[in-house]
Amino acid sequence: MKHHPFTSRRSATVAASGEQNLITLIRRWLGDVCPPAPFGIGDDCAVLPPAKHAQLVTTDPVIHGRHFDDTVPARAAGAKLLKRNLSDIAAMGGRPRWAVISLALAPDTRLDWLRGFHFGLAGCAREYGVQIVGGDVTEAPKGFFGAFLTLHGEAAGPRVLTREGARESDAIYVTGRLGGSQSGHHHKFTPRLAEGAWLARQKEVVAMMDVSDGVAKDIQALTPAGLVASVWPPLVPVSAAAKLAAGKSGRPAWEHALTDGEDYELLFVVRSSANVARFAQRWIQAFKTPLTFLGRFQQKPGPEDVDWSALHGYEHLR
Amino acid sequence: MKHHPFTSRRSATVAASGEQNLITLIRRWLGDVCPPAPFGIGDDCAVLPPAKHAQLVTTDPVIHGRHFDDTVPARAAGAKLLKRNLSDIAAMGGRPRWAVISLALAPDTRLDWLRGFHFGLAGCAREYGVQIVGGDVTEAPKGFFGAFLTLHGEAAGPRVLTREGARESDAIYVTGRLGGSQSGHHHKFTPRLAEGAWLARQKEVVAMMDVSDGVAKDIQALTPAGLVASVWPPLVPVSAAAKLAAGKSGRPAWEHALTDGEDYELLFVVRSSANVARFAQRWIQAFKTPLTFLGRFQQKPGPEDVDWSALHGYEHLR
Repeated sequence: MKHHPFTSRRSATVAASGEQNLITLIRRWLGDVCPPAPFGIGDDCAVLPPAKHAQLVTTDPVIHGRHFDDTVPARAAGAKLLKRNLSDIAAMGGRPRWAVISLALAPDTRLDWLRGFHFGLAGCAREYGVQIVGGDVTEAPKGFFGAFLTLHGEAAGPRVLTREGARESDAIYVTGRLGGSQSGHHHKFTPRLAEGAWLARQKEVVAMMDVSDGVAKDIQALTPAGLVASVWPPLVPVSAAAKLAAGKSGRPAWEHALTDGEDYELLFVVRSSANVARFAQRWIQAFKTPLTFLGRFQQKPGPEDVDWSALHGYEHLR
Repeated sequence: MKHHPFTSRRSATVAASGEQNLITLIRRWLGDVCPPAPFGIGDDCAVLPPAKHAQLVTTDPVIHGRHFDDTVPARAAGAKLLKRNLSDIAAMGGRPRWAVISLALAPDTRLDWLRGFHFGLAGCAREYGVQIVGGDVTEAPKGFFGAFLTLHGEAAGPRVLTREGARESDAIYVTGRLGGSQSGHHHKFTPRLAEGAWLARQKEVVAMMDVSDGVAKDIQALTPAGLVASVWPPLVPVSAAAKLAAGKSGRPAWEHALTDGEDYELLFVVRSSANVARFAQRWIQAFKTPLTFLGRFQQKPGPEDVDWSALHGYEHLR
């Protein structure tokens, strides 16, 4: 209950504040990441300049009880809202620009909790150069807190990377280490924006996505029809949290790494004809982030490969 | 209960469908307003072309029990989601372009209700030339349905109209007739897109907004500091629904017209130096929509004017 968003003490709630006052408070909490109207909040629409490059848009929420719980500080929940969306921009090789946020708040939402949420959001927005240009606040039923963010970016270079593009024998790579999100990593990740923008500039990289539901589920979107992702379990980069989770569950750590979800790492494909040694060399010169070769897209899996049909990542609405 | 979104019959719910299948269904329901990835749904972000003109962005949700109830058909709820946002684009003199939608759904949401919601949304999107380019589906607590839309547009001409710009003696106009939203008008309105785009091209029009919380509350945003909106009650254009509401409540119909909210009409300001007779003449040639002169911004209210401090429009979170 340490970071519970609701309270029965009415004077400490958003209902006691009232809508007009609450909007004033939110703009103050957001500070310099919230420009004045008409570029930002305060008119019927935000007015933004024309865009020279291809634009990217993505939308992801955080809902209390689903994307964070009472063990997560309000600031971390607010930062997670933006970071989830930043990871999608990273996955296309984009640069984030501006966001709008729609809040659905129970009247018993704590004002001080909400301030922490916005401080966390604003801190993250400042760090990544995102402006919060519009928003809406709506009353929700008792006990509900949801924040719905739409993030805009632009291509960081001449090309954006989509999920389409892999062919037979192409190599599969992943950044960072995987698994164990439920041990706390799920709100502590770093969106791989610099890595994503760099990868989109390397001509041997032909497809990319971020890992939100676990590699086992997400890799399906990169796999060309008729092929399989041939991945040997010992190659999977296992996080310390995944090892802990394996100790408790009795399942192998690599299984946790492939199925726990909420890794927010980049999963990408390198053309089979590329010089992978030189590619890895360039990566090491550019980043300290771990890079792991997972396997290749093949006609048939090898005898010791991961059996994807026996695994599944996080499935919503089940 | 005629149009209730939830059911205890599990086989008829979104939970029985599962997330992957649900996303496939939603794309089918949206049909031609939902282009394929990477322009639309299906990758980490939607990729949109560069924008030549100033861009407009707004976000508004519909939540069951708040913006619609079980008397409203699912299709009308879906159309209302887009129309609320279209009205904001109209209020700046913009042209709508594309939208992203984030759904928060209880597992017991009825699939057939959700189909109706998306048919209504798609029909409205088709009518106004809006493409649905991105989205997200997230599980919400039992009994919750919320749809959060972010709509993008562009300036329809060289200028966008904001809420800032009125001066002393400028005239206040409103489109359509006001009040009685609770008698069913709240989801039957027509966003005033053609009127908004036309008004933004008339140089004598200096400020504009749409009426969502009622003129009594919304007009504050147009009123320059130190002035009051001098409005004489007999001038207020009263809808048939407001007359009905007045018959029940015993309050004057003009009070309902100024406070009921959800009119989605355009409230705008014409410079005092303009030739208002010629302005009205041009309006009549262009539109059948009623246009009403409400009053002027003055130093002090007249003795028979509306006393704004005694009225208030819809106040959220109270």
